[in-house]
Amino acid sequence: MKAEIIAVGTELLVGDILNTNAQFLSRRLFALGIDVYYQTVVGDNPDRLTKAVSLAFSRADTVIFSGGLGPTDDDLTKETVASYFGVPLLFHEEIAEQITSYLHRPCSESNKKQAYIPEGAFILENKRGTAPGVILEHEGKTAILLPGPPRELLPMFSEMVEPYLKARSGFVMAERMVRLFGIGESSVGDMIRDLMESANPSVAPYAKDSEVTLRIAAKAQTQEEAEALIKEMHERLKERLGAYIYGYDEQDMVTTTAALLLKKGLTIACAESCTAGLLAGALGNIPGISACLNESVVTYSNEAKIKYLGVLPETLSAHGAVSRQTAGEMAEGIRKTAGADVGVSITGIAGPDGGTPEKPVGLVYVGVSIADAVTVRELHLIGTREKIRQAAVLHALNEIRTRLLAET
Amino acid sequence: MKAEIIAVGTELLVGDILNTNAQFLSRRLFALGIDVYYQTVVGDNPDRLTKAVSLAFSRADTVIFSGGLGPTDDDLTKETVASYFGVPLLFHEEIAEQITSYLHRPCSESNKKQAYIPEGAFILENKRGTAPGVILEHEGKTAILLPGPPRELLPMFSEMVEPYLKARSGFVMAERMVRLFGIGESSVGDMIRDLMESANPSVAPYAKDSEVTLRIAAKAQTQEEAEALIKEMHERLKERLGAYIYGYDEQDMVTTTAALLLKKGLTIACAESCTAGLLAGALGNIPGISACLNESVVTYSNEAKIKYLGVLPETLSAHGAVSRQTAGEMAEGIRKTAGADVGVSITGIAGPDGGTPEKPVGLVYVGVSIADAVTVRELHLIGTREKIRQAAVLHALNEIRTRLLAET
Repeated sequence: MKAEIIAVGTELLVGDILNTNAQFLSRRLFALGIDVYYQTVVGDNPDRLTKAVSLAFSRADTVIFSGGLGPTDDDLTKETVASYFGVPLLFHEEIAEQITSYLHRPCSESNKKQAYIPEGAFILENKRGTAPGVILEHEGKTAILLPGPPRELLPMFSEMVEPYLKARSGFVMAERMVRLFGIGESSVGDMIRDLMESANPSVAPYAKDSEVTLRIAAKAQTQEEAEALIKEMHERLKERLGAYIYGYDEQDMVTTTAALLLKKGLTIACAESCTAGLLAGALGNIPGISACLNESVVTYSNEAKIKYLGVLPETLSAHGAVSRQTAGEMAEGIRKTAGADVGVSITGIAGPDGGTPEKPVGLVYVGVSIADAVTVRELHLIGTREKIRQAAVLHALNEIRTRLLAET
Repeated sequence: MKAEIIAVGTELLVGDILNTNAQFLSRRLFALGIDVYYQTVVGDNPDRLTKAVSLAFSRADTVIFSGGLGPTDDDLTKETVASYFGVPLLFHEEIAEQITSYLHRPCSESNKKQAYIPEGAFILENKRGTAPGVILEHEGKTAILLPGPPRELLPMFSEMVEPYLKARSGFVMAERMVRLFGIGESSVGDMIRDLMESANPSVAPYAKDSEVTLRIAAKAQTQEEAEALIKEMHERLKERLGAYIYGYDEQDMVTTTAALLLKKGLTIACAESCTAGLLAGALGNIPGISACLNESVVTYSNEAKIKYLGVLPETLSAHGAVSRQTAGEMAEGIRKTAGADVGVSITGIAGPDGGTPEKPVGLVYVGVSIADAVTVRELHLIGTREKIRQAAVLHALNEIRTRLLAET
């Protein structure tokens, strides 16, 4: 099977948006064993889009489109592809109803445009937006139309397109994402260079947001054979990198740590300075977290650290707000104030200003207090203010996780 | 002038690399007033690369290539373009010497390949790598070949290619981003459909994260003329959409609201339930925010709402934690507790569970307390837990903003 990817949108051609969809789709198609020889980006222009469609189908049997399924007049992908195949668009009342239900208001004239689907196409329901996806098979050619926003395209591909392509391919693929924390991509590369040369199962590292993820992919005749290949490689990775592995697949750091708290039935409270709520806010994204998280405080000023957490004024004057001592008192203070099982603190210098030679931008302390034992980790983070704050949150979650695992 | 971008490299087609070069080049070409109608990605395959070159030059007069200039046998861009134009490659001793000097060792046979340049081309010296860039003009067509690594391509483009293209173009571009809040993309489309048909200045909407941004772009002979075109369209947009415009260009909602607080010298404190720290955390990303933000609390449980904010138990029992009344008392409570000028509260049902027919998932109240006047906004938000929480934060920032503007 040969495929091409066409991303539709003038915003891509003027450089407003990075074409992350093409990378995502290419990687997934590669993992499915489908060859991609060209990626194309074309604007919201009917003539040029038609030419791109025609060219792509002259070279490939399957073309995956992203974007151009929105409600406005310049969204033309569906209309252009239907017209290229000579297939009419038909109105689907049930899609209009889904859009109405999604928007909590009557479907507008603009949105009604999104309820028209090429005759004979499979409809891919969009649970995260108003544009349904489409799979249209016609005389040996297949057009797969997906909405442009990554948060709609990614799950739609994983949940509906991937199974469809797998069913067509005649073999099965299995994959596992192995999540690492506390090690960089180049060190991972040095430690598993030989394993990365394996073709089946394959192993590839991806670095993002202070984490490295290894993707194991295997191709086989049956699901069992593919899973066995995955398992074997997984064991070899555990031998080399076991200390850094914290989770698998969709279990990111916040999900993993929150699951541990929920499983153990422990309550947690956070006292945040430079992250100013991001740690509690991240935990708050886990459904059901209110069983663990009752309260937390943001204490930017010294006064707030004294008032809410009982940090000693002498500690602040002797060691400063960004210090091992203050972090420890903050963690213990919030645990006691909140009557929680786990108290966690973050205090640091996120920049861009406020650094000194002794306490440079990126110096962050993370404190964890459990049952009267307080531990404090000193971090030296790099990057922008935003990156330092986000990394501090991940390190705090990892500290909580490792303390909880050590407690058992 | 019409241009196309061709990124060469199999690593792009298998999804190992994100094509950031295409976005960078597109943005810069747009700013120069050069139309880009297609971006293409093609692998390190001589036959398919030749076809891509031929197609691009049938549609555009200028083609910018990234990648495929390396020392290995599968780097073919220079060879393919020279062959397409029927121009021989000539060895340049001075380039071999530059490579030797860059590598601090004698130029290998592989690297010598990089010292061959199409006859008659301009050579773009590479100070950050071994592959020189090339500008080749031939019978009205121009090929610009740049190395693939962004740290080599970006400065080479800025330092040498941009001046070359500016000298050729003969006109200038201006643009302005107009940021809207509180209105959806389809409604914006309905209200300015006629303006969106204008070619110069052009107006195009982009929707992202509960916001719509309009991009105005103009092309003219002088900077003044381009700015005048922008200004005229901006005035027309203000007439139609003035109530929804909150900022311009890089000023997003949190930047705009924080700037207003900093300018007025006001302090703020947040009391968050369902967002659990995300509002304070977002404000915390603004450098210098510690002048405004001293403390904030996360009050998930009823007990915490009573303890930290003085919410009346009767209010909670009569109206519930997610109610207009509780939101109002939370906002007033945190303002008084923190001794701040502005108190803001968020309480709501982020889902996926916890909704009832009377209080469905997505129901959120935002309270703002300034100088004893408390206002509460009822919101009906849609989407995932994460989306509802992020939207609640944006609405809270917008409420603070509009209250502060009304206070003057």
